[in-house]
Amino acid sequence: MQSSVRAFAPATVSNLGCAFDILGFALEQPGDEVRVRWADSSGVRISSIQGDGDRLPADSDRNTASVAAQALLRHLDCNRGLEIDLVKRMPLGSGLGSSAASAAAALTAVNALLEKPLPPQGLLPFAVEAERAACGAGHADNAAPSLLGGIVLIRSYDPLEVVPLPSPPRLWCTVAAPAIEVRTEEARGLLSQQVPLEKAVSQWGNVAGLIAGILQCDYALIGRSLEDVIIEPQRAHLVPGYHEVKQAALEAGALGCGLSGSGPSTFALSSGEKAARRAGEAMQHRFGRRGIEAAVFVSQVNQRGAHVVG
Amino acid sequence: MQSSVRAFAPATVSNLGCAFDILGFALEQPGDEVRVRWADSSGVRISSIQGDGDRLPADSDRNTASVAAQALLRHLDCNRGLEIDLVKRMPLGSGLGSSAASAAAALTAVNALLEKPLPPQGLLPFAVEAERAACGAGHADNAAPSLLGGIVLIRSYDPLEVVPLPSPPRLWCTVAAPAIEVRTEEARGLLSQQVPLEKAVSQWGNVAGLIAGILQCDYALIGRSLEDVIIEPQRAHLVPGYHEVKQAALEAGALGCGLSGSGPSTFALSSGEKAARRAGEAMQHRFGRRGIEAAVFVSQVNQRGAHVVG
Repeated sequence: MQSSVRAFAPATVSNLGCAFDILGFALEQPGDEVRVRWADSSGVRISSIQGDGDRLPADSDRNTASVAAQALLRHLDCNRGLEIDLVKRMPLGSGLGSSAASAAAALTAVNALLEKPLPPQGLLPFAVEAERAACGAGHADNAAPSLLGGIVLIRSYDPLEVVPLPSPPRLWCTVAAPAIEVRTEEARGLLSQQVPLEKAVSQWGNVAGLIAGILQCDYALIGRSLEDVIIEPQRAHLVPGYHEVKQAALEAGALGCGLSGSGPSTFALSSGEKAARRAGEAMQHRFGRRGIEAAVFVSQVNQRGAHVVG
Repeated sequence: MQSSVRAFAPATVSNLGCAFDILGFALEQPGDEVRVRWADSSGVRISSIQGDGDRLPADSDRNTASVAAQALLRHLDCNRGLEIDLVKRMPLGSGLGSSAASAAAALTAVNALLEKPLPPQGLLPFAVEAERAACGAGHADNAAPSLLGGIVLIRSYDPLEVVPLPSPPRLWCTVAAPAIEVRTEEARGLLSQQVPLEKAVSQWGNVAGLIAGILQCDYALIGRSLEDVIIEPQRAHLVPGYHEVKQAALEAGALGCGLSGSGPSTFALSSGEKAARRAGEAMQHRFGRRGIEAAVFVSQVNQRGAHVVG
């Protein structure tokens, strides 16, 4: 049995336009790295955090890496202590599932320390518990793809049911992460709690089209179906220049474009790598015109999810 | 060129639980039959209606068969007159797309009279126009499957976009049509025009699961995903004994159960013919306990849609 394990968990794009709270997928990069080791004393402790600019809590009850690890150990009736080193390799508050990636990496590392590891899907409830602690809502659309990889549908939250979906082979994703921050809790607070029935029908027509497009590898259908008539109109103003950036991505040939999570990261889907890279340049350029630096990540859907490294 | 054509168009199950207004499929039986012939005088005229118990309007501007035919001829700038004979072979106001079937049969027959017939999908806008005339809302989730056959997704209404979906090979449908009537217009009037966001998210999670289940032939997923948390709770009381009938279908082995259209017909989906027939007996028996006679139809998804006969 190993005494120390290091694991990586990828950033994720969630919400996917129309599919608010129910769909997400994993990126190849960026992501978080977590090292865990058994400690002599009991309790889960965050020993170090790097790459967060001193902004993440080291308090074990508030950091998603330790909250998730604690939840897993509690579930296993395990009283051993753990030390956690967290290396953030992605922007915080960027809408790329930063809190979920820390939890997924920690769970994957702790799991590898166990004599009888759980299957990856068995770790999901603990990642969701950590999400609830971090942002007040136990959503799973970042946690599930970060843990499991691929495109993941959250069919139901009660009971929690995830449905892995195959990734169309030519599907590429571009993420532009502007150097501004949107707090998930605040972005959720903005949302009207009532939706006009007519818009709900439009939205679930698009959700159905998006799933059909993904499963039938119909790239044009995916593009048309990404449209979000409910959430995006309420959140777009949080990201300066969002509409221009979206327009630039579409003009560069992207299939569709939307806010990743609650933003400010903006994602575009494209058919093929070239179009994805062109979209990235166009998005970065357009943010630049507003004087906003944006990091760009271009990747296919990451099929591996969180995994042990080193 | 033929001077007289007869066409059949099938009844349809629309809404499919969670998929209100966006999904429908065609049944093998029942359905409507329409005969059309060129007339000497201009204008579209309903010459006869059978099987409606004298309840359908013979006024060309109000009957969906003639409204659809008029719309098609207007589109083609054709001034010739038509005579229409309509044979209703299905219950009216039953939630099985009776108005759409009449329109689809009429359009298919008229189309066959033309020198240059349109492709079947090209007839859809005229069927939708007829639906708008009949029940105040231009919905397409009965018209599209009745015309085209199969399972059809209405991804968008503006612009109208239909996406044919393949039918899982072991999927069977049971319809119990109780001898009571629900007017679509009234059933629509009951619906709250605002939906709580949380329920909308549950609903589109189910919509996504239903499409994934259909495309991946995952019968259990189809069953779990049929659940409708928005419309059914507002309409179930229109059908006496609905919850018992649903329970009976599920106990008999159906995957899931819901209102067909706005009811009163109740549909169940099953994996295999045996389960579908057992569900039919159970549903009929349960309506019977309430003193309500119910006609039962058991079929796979009709792949052919409206077609010329005889």
